Amino acid sequence: MAQVRCQIIAIGNELLLGDVQDTNTYWLCQQLTGLGGKVIRCFIVGDDPEEIGWAVKEGLSRDVTLIITTGGLGPTADDITLQAIARALELPLEENEEALRMIESRYQALYQAGYIQDPSITPPRRKMALFPKGGKPLFNPVGTAPAMLLEYKGSYIVSLPGVPEEMKGIFQSSLVPFLKELFGQAFYESITVSLECGDESSIAEVVEKVARLHPGVYVKSKARAFGKKVRLRVTLAASGADPEEVTRAIGKALSYLEEEMASRGIKVSKEL
Amino acid sequence: MAQVRCQIIAIGNELLLGDVQDTNTYWLCQQLTGLGGKVIRCFIVGDDPEEIGWAVKEGLSRDVTLIITTGGLGPTADDITLQAIARALELPLEENEEALRMIESRYQALYQAGYIQDPSITPPRRKMALFPKGGKPLFNPVGTAPAMLLEYKGSYIVSLPGVPEEMKGIFQSSLVPFLKELFGQAFYESITVSLECGDESSIAEVVEKVARLHPGVYVKSKARAFGKKVRLRVTLAASGADPEEVTRAIGKALSYLEEEMASRGIKVSKEL
Repeated sequence: MAQVRCQIIAIGNELLLGDVQDTNTYWLCQQLTGLGGKVIRCFIVGDDPEEIGWAVKEGLSRDVTLIITTGGLGPTADDITLQAIARALELPLEENEEALRMIESRYQALYQAGYIQDPSITPPRRKMALFPKGGKPLFNPVGTAPAMLLEYKGSYIVSLPGVPEEMKGIFQSSLVPFLKELFGQAFYESITVSLECGDESSIAEVVEKVARLHPGVYVKSKARAFGKKVRLRVTLAASGADPEEVTRAIGKALSYLEEEMASRGIKVSKEL
Repeated sequence: MAQVRCQIIAIGNELLLGDVQDTNTYWLCQQLTGLGGKVIRCFIVGDDPEEIGWAVKEGLSRDVTLIITTGGLGPTADDITLQAIARALELPLEENEEALRMIESRYQALYQAGYIQDPSITPPRRKMALFPKGGKPLFNPVGTAPAMLLEYKGSYIVSLPGVPEEMKGIFQSSLVPFLKELFGQAFYESITVSLECGDESSIAEVVEKVARLHPGVYVKSKARAFGKKVRLRVTLAASGADPEEVTRAIGKALSYLEEEMASRGIKVSKEL
């Protein structure tokens, strides 16, 4: 089974200004890879409806099945992700009843816990219930803005908040079961080994050979600092429907790597 | 003077797999913003010539003056950034004499320091001197792969290594003077203040008003966790040719924010 192609779009002027580091993309790459998906490309764009719309349409037009956006769901005027998606896909933007009830329940809970003085649904709070038609709200157990899952012409667009705790909370509570079904029974495994040698260029040939002879296995060496006893890391990874086959493919590639390195007097170690 | 529009492209399968976190983009956003540039969008793509070429051409076709790529300059077969750029822009790929001399001098230095046993220029090492025609090599004081600066139809493409120490070393030694000239005399300043209130939605209206009345100043509130004594941060930033004007614009917006908050019984503090 082919892996489901995914694209991530992180949204926020503060990311482009270097004011805040986007850590959501890294976390999502790990999660999607671990669940068996294939992240094809990631974007950071500003709080700009044209840029957001462009990034979403770019993904849909280039054979991506799942687009995840982070950021821009909050109550302030520069939180425009859902409006931008509605405009780009020419869907009406309308108040989502279920989203509004989620928002009400979250502000009630915050009020009852004594965190806020007034639980009433002011216009900025109500704004968070404006969804593109067809969008399904996902409950936010951490913050107040519901996330969204939208099916569009056979693809899926998921919009998550930018605050990492909220993003992770919704992903884990509402998205994991959906993604497991979407990705099918895919398994991903990786192993990283280390070896000592002078520099990356001296083992480039071997790494290339392992990759060429084991096309189902992803092989990557990582350069570290130079030094007399420098360690290089090599990662071998594979995914597929059958977990035993995945393990076997990685094992074969690793044995080959070990033999080739041994013939050059280099020991491959599982210690990093 | 209009700010120079910049785009960053981080390259590497390991980034999409969530195996390594891309920290280069964040650092570059800070540097470019600080020097007076305007980062418009960022990409992460894999070690795939089509994706790299697409991301470069996308930037050039959408009015970006500076594109910075990170990653894919090393000696292994999956390091294909310069080849991909040459192909995308239909430029011949040729051995750059100056780049080759830089590589030789780096391996000689590593050899003389006792880090490697053989300084000879093997094919993988020589590969790092293959540049698109017209590309100018930038000396790498940390690693071995030279970076590249390429002028193309009035825009600039800079390709830096993916190893953060090498990327930063080249940026600081070779790029800062060039960028200062490219960006002109632009100054950037930002101030972040904090205030205590229930949640972001209750100050959304004020933040929006400050932004609307001070269009030259970027205003952004950041949601933190909820709590009885939660602190929200508000950032005010501006850039321009005259440093005094920049400071004045931020000062005006900040005074207005303080007044509006004070009238709601909320104190704005410079402690974060």
